[in-house]
Amino acid sequence: MALIIQKYGGSSVADAERIKNVARRIAAARARGDQVVVVVSAMGDTTDDLIKMAYQVTQQPGERELDVLLSTGELVSSTLLAMALKNMGYGAISLSGAQAGIRTDASHSRARILNLNPKRVVEELEKGNIVIVAGFQGITDEMDITTLGRGGSDTTAVALAASLGAEVCQIYTDVEGVSTADPRLVPEAQKLDEIGYEEMLELATYGAKVVHPRAVELGELFNIPILVASSFTDSPGTLIHGGVSMEVRNKVRSIAHDLDMAKITLVGVPDRPGIAASIFEPLAKANISVDTIVQNASIENITDLTFTVAKSQLDRAMDVVKPIAESIGARECVSDSRLGKVSIIGTGMQNTPGYAARMFGVLSERGINIQLITTSEIRITCIIDEARVKDAVQALHRAFELEIEG
Amino acid sequence: MALIIQKYGGSSVADAERIKNVARRIAAARARGDQVVVVVSAMGDTTDDLIKMAYQVTQQPGERELDVLLSTGELVSSTLLAMALKNMGYGAISLSGAQAGIRTDASHSRARILNLNPKRVVEELEKGNIVIVAGFQGITDEMDITTLGRGGSDTTAVALAASLGAEVCQIYTDVEGVSTADPRLVPEAQKLDEIGYEEMLELATYGAKVVHPRAVELGELFNIPILVASSFTDSPGTLIHGGVSMEVRNKVRSIAHDLDMAKITLVGVPDRPGIAASIFEPLAKANISVDTIVQNASIENITDLTFTVAKSQLDRAMDVVKPIAESIGARECVSDSRLGKVSIIGTGMQNTPGYAARMFGVLSERGINIQLITTSEIRITCIIDEARVKDAVQALHRAFELEIEG
Repeated sequence: MALIIQKYGGSSVADAERIKNVARRIAAARARGDQVVVVVSAMGDTTDDLIKMAYQVTQQPGERELDVLLSTGELVSSTLLAMALKNMGYGAISLSGAQAGIRTDASHSRARILNLNPKRVVEELEKGNIVIVAGFQGITDEMDITTLGRGGSDTTAVALAASLGAEVCQIYTDVEGVSTADPRLVPEAQKLDEIGYEEMLELATYGAKVVHPRAVELGELFNIPILVASSFTDSPGTLIHGGVSMEVRNKVRSIAHDLDMAKITLVGVPDRPGIAASIFEPLAKANISVDTIVQNASIENITDLTFTVAKSQLDRAMDVVKPIAESIGARECVSDSRLGKVSIIGTGMQNTPGYAARMFGVLSERGINIQLITTSEIRITCIIDEARVKDAVQALHRAFELEIEG
Repeated sequence: MALIIQKYGGSSVADAERIKNVARRIAAARARGDQVVVVVSAMGDTTDDLIKMAYQVTQQPGERELDVLLSTGELVSSTLLAMALKNMGYGAISLSGAQAGIRTDASHSRARILNLNPKRVVEELEKGNIVIVAGFQGITDEMDITTLGRGGSDTTAVALAASLGAEVCQIYTDVEGVSTADPRLVPEAQKLDEIGYEEMLELATYGAKVVHPRAVELGELFNIPILVASSFTDSPGTLIHGGVSMEVRNKVRSIAHDLDMAKITLVGVPDRPGIAASIFEPLAKANISVDTIVQNASIENITDLTFTVAKSQLDRAMDVVKPIAESIGARECVSDSRLGKVSIIGTGMQNTPGYAARMFGVLSERGINIQLITTSEIRITCIIDEARVKDAVQALHRAFELEIEG
C-alpha cells in the first residue's frame, strides 16, 4: 500500500460535475489500495472573484485580510470534494491548511512554509479516510491565516508529499503534461514522458504554466517525483524526477515563452557604486519582482540600465523608479510593455557549444530582433517583440527538431 | 470609554455598498470614543448559496463538512468589513470564531458554546483596533470548525458581550426594532421602545424573527441589554433588558405569528407508558424539533396524539413516525401542513385573568377555528388555519389596543 498525493487545480474542480469527476478519479486511486491525500485549489475563478469583491470595498485591501478572504476559496472546494467522496461511500475528511499542520512565516500573500507537522493527516489516514487538504494556505504561530502566493497549491502538495514520505506527488491540471512547446502555439509539440528537476525549473520559471517553479524546487530538494497529468483524460502525463536517463538529456528539451513582461530602461545613469542597490532595493520593498537585469558597458562613466518586470507591475514599478532615476541623475526613464521572451531549455546544452549561435541564427533568419539575452547553464533566453513570439517559438521548435520525439 | 458590541445581519452587508454603509456606522460609534467589537453574518444569500452548492454534489452533505463550508460565508463578510474600515482610516482586524476564542462542543450544525476566551479580541482592542468577528462559528477542542445553528450570529454577539463585559449588545437588522405585530400584516403596528427578556423570549420563540431566542436567553442569563435596531436608519430601536418599568408590563405587549408549521396526528394510539418516548426519542435523534405536543384524554385506553414540526421537516418527520405508528398499533398517522400559529404575549397576563377568554372570543367572532392551544405564564398560542393567520393577527392587535402605544 503506497501513499500518494494528488493535487487538482481550479479548472478541475470548477463546478459540481467536475468535482464529482475528480472524486471518481480519487476513488479509483483509493480502490487500487493506495492511501490518498488530495490537495485542492479554489473552484474555477473563485480567487479572482474574491479579489474583485475586495477591490469593490477598497483600493488597498490589507494583505492579512486578503489572505483570510482568499483562503475561503480552498475551504469551499475541499469540503465539497470531501462531500462528493462520502456520497460515493468513501471515508473522507477535509482539512484546512492549519489543520494539516502547515505553519508559515507571517509574510501575508507570499508566506513561506516554516514547518509541516501532518499529525492530523496521518491520524485521518490511519482511520481509513481520504484526506482532502485546502491548498494555498497555512497559519502563523499567532494563528493568523496566510496564503502561499502564486503556485501555492502545488507547493502545498509537494510539501505534504515530502513530510509524509509519499511515493509520488501527482499534479492534475487541464493539460496532458509538459510539452516541447505550448501546443496552442505549436500544434506539432510533443508531450514529454519525463523531465529532470532542473530543466523543469527553468521551463516553469521561463513561462511554462503547467507547474509552479517553487513546487519543482521543493520536489528536487526532497527528491519527490512529481507527475503532471490531465484531470480530464487518462493519458500518462509527464514525470518530473531526478533520474532522467542520459540520452534524453543530450538535447534541447523544450521551448518556453512568456508574454507577461515589460521593460524599464534608465538611460544615461552615472556609473558609480551603489546605483543598482538604490534602484532595486526600493523595488523589492514594493514587492515588485525584477526578472532580467542588463547593464551596458560604461562609456565615460555613463551607462544604461535595463530590467524587466511583469506587465501587471509596470505602472507600480515606474512609480517607484522615476523619482529614483531623477535623484541619481539619470537622463531618462522609459518603459516598453510590448515584449515577450522565448527560451530554449535542456541539460544537453551545458557541455555542448553552438546552441546559442543556432538560436540567434534562427531568430535572425526570421527577421526577429533580439533586445536582451540572458542565459543559465541549461537555458538561453531572448527578449523580443511580443508580436513575434509565436513565430519565434515555432521556428525554434522546428530548428531543434522537437516534433520528432518527446 | 465604553465597550459596545454591534452585530450586523446578512441583509445589512449584502453587497459592497452596504458593507461600506455598515463601516460608516461602526466608524461613527468609534468616533464617539467607544471601543467596538462587531459580529457579522454572511452576505445576503451566501449561506443558502453554499448549501445549494453542497446539494449539487451530494444529497447528504456531512454536518462536519457543511460546517466548514458555511463558516466561509462569515469569513468573507468579516474580512471585507475590516478592509472597508481600514479604507476609511480606522484600525481594524477580522477574527474567525476560533481566533475570537469561541470554543464549542462537537455538535456540528448546532454547536453550543462551551467557553469563550476573548484574549485576542482584548489584545486587538488594546492596540486601538475595531475588531470584526465572524459570527455563527466556533471551534472544538480538536480544532474542527463548528457552526452554532440558527441565530448563531446573534448568539456570538451576546456571548462576546457577556465575556467582554460590554455595556450593550446592539443587533442591527433590516427592521426598526420589535413591534406590537409584524408591520407587514398590521400596518398600524407600533415599534416598542423597550421589552423585557422573558416577553422577548416568548415573542422570538413564537415567530418574531427580529432576534433569535437563544441570544435573548443568553442576554437574560448574563444581564446584557440588547438593542435591536435598523442598520439602514438612525431610529432608536428597541431595548431588550431586565429593568422594564412596572406599568408597561401590565398588558399584552405584542402579537407573534408563525406560518412555518405542520401538524402530525397519530389517531387511535393505545395509551400505555412509554408510548410518547417511543415516538419522540427517534424524532430527536433525527434532529427534528418538535414544538407543541397535545394528547387527548384517553377513552377506553385509546388516545390521539398530535404534535407540530417545522414545515421543512414534515416529510422527514413522517418518515420517522410512520413505521413507529404501525409498530405501536396506532390506527392512522396523518399530517397537515396548512397551519399557522398566533400568540399574544405580555407579562401583564400572568396575574390577570380573562386574556385567554378574550383571545378565543376574538377568533370565534371572526369564525376562526382553533385547532390546538398552548400557553405559558406570559403567552397564549392558538394554532389555526394558515389562511386565517393574517386576519387573526389584525383582529387581536385591535382587540388588545396595541395600535395606541408602543
